[in-house]
Amino acid sequence: MNNNFFLNTETSEKLYKYACGLPIIDYHNHLSPEDIAENKRYLDVYDLWIKPDPYKHRAMRMCGVAEEYITGCKPGREKFFKWCETVPKLIGNPLYVWSIAELKAVFNIDEMPAAGNAERIYNYCNEYLKKNNVCVNTLLEKFNVEYACPCASLTDDISMYETHSKLAPSLRGDDIVNISAEFLNKLEKETNIHTDDLDSFKRAVRLRLEYFHKCGCRFSDHALDNGFVFYEDDGKNEERFYALKNGFLSDSEKEKLSSYILVFLGGEYARLDFTMQLHIGAQRYTSSVLREVAGPAGGFAGIGNSVNVKSLTTFLDALDCTEYRLPKTILFTLNPADNAIMSVLAGSYSRDGVSGLITQGPAWWWCDNKYAIAEMLENTSVFGVLSNFVGMTTDSRSFLSFVRHDYFRRILCDFLGSKYERNELCCAYEDLERLVYKVCYENAGLAIQGGKADESQR
Amino acid sequence: MNNNFFLNTETSEKLYKYACGLPIIDYHNHLSPEDIAENKRYLDVYDLWIKPDPYKHRAMRMCGVAEEYITGCKPGREKFFKWCETVPKLIGNPLYVWSIAELKAVFNIDEMPAAGNAERIYNYCNEYLKKNNVCVNTLLEKFNVEYACPCASLTDDISMYETHSKLAPSLRGDDIVNISAEFLNKLEKETNIHTDDLDSFKRAVRLRLEYFHKCGCRFSDHALDNGFVFYEDDGKNEERFYALKNGFLSDSEKEKLSSYILVFLGGEYARLDFTMQLHIGAQRYTSSVLREVAGPAGGFAGIGNSVNVKSLTTFLDALDCTEYRLPKTILFTLNPADNAIMSVLAGSYSRDGVSGLITQGPAWWWCDNKYAIAEMLENTSVFGVLSNFVGMTTDSRSFLSFVRHDYFRRILCDFLGSKYERNELCCAYEDLERLVYKVCYENAGLAIQGGKADESQR
Amino acid sequence: MNNNFFLNTETSEKLYKYACGLPIIDYHNHLSPEDIAENKRYLDVYDLWIKPDPYKHRAMRMCGVAEEYITGCKPGREKFFKWCETVPKLIGNPLYVWSIAELKAVFNIDEMPAAGNAERIYNYCNEYLKKNNVCVNTLLEKFNVEYACPCASLTDDISMYETHSKLAPSLRGDDIVNISAEFLNKLEKETNIHTDDLDSFKRAVRLRLEYFHKCGCRFSDHALDNGFVFYEDDGKNEERFYALKNGFLSDSEKEKLSSYILVFLGGEYARLDFTMQLHIGAQRYTSSVLREVAGPAGGFAGIGNSVNVKSLTTFLDALDCTEYRLPKTILFTLNPADNAIMSVLAGSYSRDGVSGLITQGPAWWWCDNKYAIAEMLENTSVFGVLSNFVGMTTDSRSFLSFVRHDYFRRILCDFLGSKYERNELCCAYEDLERLVYKVCYENAGLAIQGGKADESQR
Repeated sequence: MNNNFFLNTETSEKLYKYACGLPIIDYHNHLSPEDIAENKRYLDVYDLWIKPDPYKHRAMRMCGVAEEYITGCKPGREKFFKWCETVPKLIGNPLYVWSIAELKAVFNIDEMPAAGNAERIYNYCNEYLKKNNVCVNTLLEKFNVEYACPCASLTDDISMYETHSKLAPSLRGDDIVNISAEFLNKLEKETNIHTDDLDSFKRAVRLRLEYFHKCGCRFSDHALDNGFVFYEDDGKNEERFYALKNGFLSDSEKEKLSSYILVFLGGEYARLDFTMQLHIGAQRYTSSVLREVAGPAGGFAGIGNSVNVKSLTTFLDALDCTEYRLPKTILFTLNPADNAIMSVLAGSYSRDGVSGLITQGPAWWWCDNKYAIAEMLENTSVFGVLSNFVGMTTDSRSFLSFVRHDYFRRILCDFLGSKYERNELCCAYEDLERLVYKVCYENAGLAIQGGKADESQR
Repeated sequence: MNNNFFLNTETSEKLYKYACGLPIIDYHNHLSPEDIAENKRYLDVYDLWIKPDPYKHRAMRMCGVAEEYITGCKPGREKFFKWCETVPKLIGNPLYVWSIAELKAVFNIDEMPAAGNAERIYNYCNEYLKKNNVCVNTLLEKFNVEYACPCASLTDDISMYETHSKLAPSLRGDDIVNISAEFLNKLEKETNIHTDDLDSFKRAVRLRLEYFHKCGCRFSDHALDNGFVFYEDDGKNEERFYALKNGFLSDSEKEKLSSYILVFLGGEYARLDFTMQLHIGAQRYTSSVLREVAGPAGGFAGIGNSVNVKSLTTFLDALDCTEYRLPKTILFTLNPADNAIMSVLAGSYSRDGVSGLITQGPAWWWCDNKYAIAEMLENTSVFGVLSNFVGMTTDSRSFLSFVRHDYFRRILCDFLGSKYERNELCCAYEDLERLVYKVCYENAGLAIQGGKADESQR
Repeated sequence: MNNNFFLNTETSEKLYKYACGLPIIDYHNHLSPEDIAENKRYLDVYDLWIKPDPYKHRAMRMCGVAEEYITGCKPGREKFFKWCETVPKLIGNPLYVWSIAELKAVFNIDEMPAAGNAERIYNYCNEYLKKNNVCVNTLLEKFNVEYACPCASLTDDISMYETHSKLAPSLRGDDIVNISAEFLNKLEKETNIHTDDLDSFKRAVRLRLEYFHKCGCRFSDHALDNGFVFYEDDGKNEERFYALKNGFLSDSEKEKLSSYILVFLGGEYARLDFTMQLHIGAQRYTSSVLREVAGPAGGFAGIGNSVNVKSLTTFLDALDCTEYRLPKTILFTLNPADNAIMSVLAGSYSRDGVSGLITQGPAWWWCDNKYAIAEMLENTSVFGVLSNFVGMTTDSRSFLSFVRHDYFRRILCDFLGSKYERNELCCAYEDLERLVYKVCYENAGLAIQGGKADESQR
């Protein structure tokens, strides 16, 4: 893997030299809270590299690997070999490059995994893990992570973050919106509040939100999956909540209640200066067989149809009309055909003194690849304001995925460097460095400080 | 700003040298009829450059500028400064390049506006405006505008165009389709026809259409916004019109009447040799707050979902089955994901002897940028026939936006020049010059002459 | 037409030198079974080149050619001239390049057809056809066609394929799904089975499917047109079939029966190791006038809205839950905005030991052009696995369209060669050659052998 990988012009290279030294802020991921809590030490390369990475599982399935070698009962060693056999088939897929980069970053191995070297790599890595103290905290250090936000549900234990210098929780709000009896039980237990009506429910939620805030949480996220519809408040949500508590709320009625709660939460996020991430457009139900075998996040989700624009704009407008107005909002889309829709919304809502109130998020999940990242950068540039872009986040379950920040930075630097050398940008080189700084580092840092602390008010 | 800006090959440069001398035909824009009527003289650079340009207002909002400096009560001078402070943040957005180009074209200033030079630029420009007789007509001359079509509603005063050598109205037909009591009143007053039934309504509309024709109008446009549905005639529209007149037509019933009127109008356009522009895919309702503050065209519209293809094709087919068949039709899409849908329709309807009966329109509104223009050109090339493309129009409220024709021509010339040098086109250089001539100038001129005067019949 | 047409790097050229010698497998097209049965000898260049090619008809319409010169009563000679006059207007459209390539491949003419040389070309070609024995079999040989699959309906005569060394039928399944009385009659006649209920209907279908299998058929295809909705089995399809037989099944009820039959067929395809092609997203109804004049496949179809993802995934899941699981499935989309949706589904279903169980198909129909092919390759690379891609097929009615395999291979080789030289792929040159071999030849060959014979089990 060439050092100038992805860098096609001198300006690209120069920009990358600057960018690669910047610390990482990873404002949304799925790192394991258990591993974090115990500062887990890794002793097996399969456990570290393959087990927690559904991207790799998916690729193995596409290449015909039997499920027993993916999520099944085969030993880690054999699963590792199957993965190595799969890699050479993935030319053109980001996993091909990431795999090489991951091994290089952690183990300083500079070769492509394949059937031929699988055993050697396996033994070498396990040896390396034993010799060196590879654990959560050393990995964070190795990748120059300044701040990362593993997500947590409102009722999760987040005490491990209370004193962590580099990690803070990011609130995954979905179970607040799609309330289940189980969730309410947990919430009542955590807060000692009986959620008899919407008001007490809100009080309980607020209590936890404030605890999250105390633990450093400044980001929340909601999944607006394929089929998302927003319902304006019709004044009947108290009744719906009552019906829900008593177990007789229909699914279609529950969707209306969900819209109501979403607006309530958005208002809270604005009040607490949380940045709200909307993860839009997944089709999570595909193969029942894989859902059964690999669990709901097993790497087989599809891309849904275009977001319902009317629903999305009405939802944002409803928030904009609440007391605290819209929180800072990042719109992630899984369907790249929606890039323009998302990036244009940056100009559809505003708040005095807040730059980048709404911004498109980075190319997300399956879109985390050179092609889709470049498309996303194009869209945000021309339809929005690139210098407001909050930058990369991995959204990954694997500690090794931090290499994707480097991957992103190379693409960004080449995106800007190539345009600069093609005379498209009409700006000075120094302006580009400043832009890279903002996108790779500063803007995410500002987002941590919330909507009120933005640039235009410093 | 380099003279070879956007031009990456020798062929691109050569083509551009040819293209840049062609006169401008701007067949759809929103220039102020009042300014035109009085041949307004501009004395303040804010009034000329920023006030009439919602694109700039939108960019300021995205960068956190307070609304009082955008549409509010602050003096023009301070608003001007805020805009200059905003420009450097817009690297990658077309406004960055346009701003430089606009100042250069009118004031011969060749620098990027910013906080540091804002005052100097402000004073210099105002001085310049005072010294030189900068007014509507000198601006048209400066930009080499041969013909431009500001839009007007059917009941608007368009007398200022009766004798204008360079300007003719373009009919904005939306209030004919979404009839209001206010519109009917005006229409009756203008025509002295009582619109008691559909027949008399049509007579009144026809009378005005013929007056528009007399004033040089050859273009009409209709907004098919997000959610557009076409209803085939069910024979009940006379009843609906009666209900409307008496104020008890529901919104959903009104949509059906609108479909009926749209077909009626399309037929009239075909009869009168108007080219019909369909502006498809805006989500005009986003922030209620901004709508209140900045008005309905205040620069905060979003991009809607993909057009309802069944509705669009049924509408076009209904027109194709009327006496005069389809008028020449230009399909503009705000959602670039619909580029292929739009450009393919060029081959779905035809009329003997008419080339380019249906063509995709230029990248429109927020899509007026290098990225989306190049995409639009690709789509029209491969799915349609580029040599039928009717070329650029600004759709702008600002006289300075004519720089966008230069912007477009550079992109077109580089699009063709680069492909030519990559051996993709398999044609001779002279063919390209001819193509550039058609796209930048000739085709729009033919469209002014209407569907019947096209190339294949000369 | 330059020999290095489309090849922009040395690696591209080198790869193409390798690719261009590979035999052609064309697993889906619309070649005439009558011409095949009689090994038709061509004596008129219009009959060979223009008459069977709706792409050319469409282009003539877009350029204003009167219908009498397209599908009308004018003599072939004059129609030929009109086409030649049209070609120079098509710069940028694939037909421009294809036309040159087609004349070169068959007649060794290396010039662009135009008004000026039309007569000369016409006479030369007809002379050539007379002198040389140009017929179906020599054309197949000339284009190095190893295997091609003209489609046939279940009740069609396919006896001409029983002993053909290079051709096998591909089952066009649409009339099985959208059962008509006429189809049932034919089916009963062919099979001597009374289709009184679903069971006997299925038996009759199975009988024919087995005969197709015997004639070498390994591919089927279904059109999921704009508006496709999948209905899960509600247990009422026996009743629906009964209603259908008795002529009182409503259209909306018939759609439900269609879903049921589609699942039945998919199960049969899996059992028989047929690869199932889904042709998704056409809007076949556009101009009634053209439909009347040119027939339903007359080259005026539009592109429909995005596929209903929920319907598509539910359909695939229903198949995945049947006895034989999903057959190998190729997803073609006419709407390039759905590229990501389609290519991601490759990872959403799996079967142990089958690589590429679901793959995106080649850029299809109007998308068969450099722009859309490159987009399709990008999407399949980053969202799926390019090395599983089953490669090009023409889907054409013209024997001359085999030039499109060369067209595709050039694009593929340049796609890979350019990325390789830009340091994007991180692989060795030899890996690329292997990839080209798989995509251009091997994978289609494996598909002929069905889902069970794939690479991972050899």
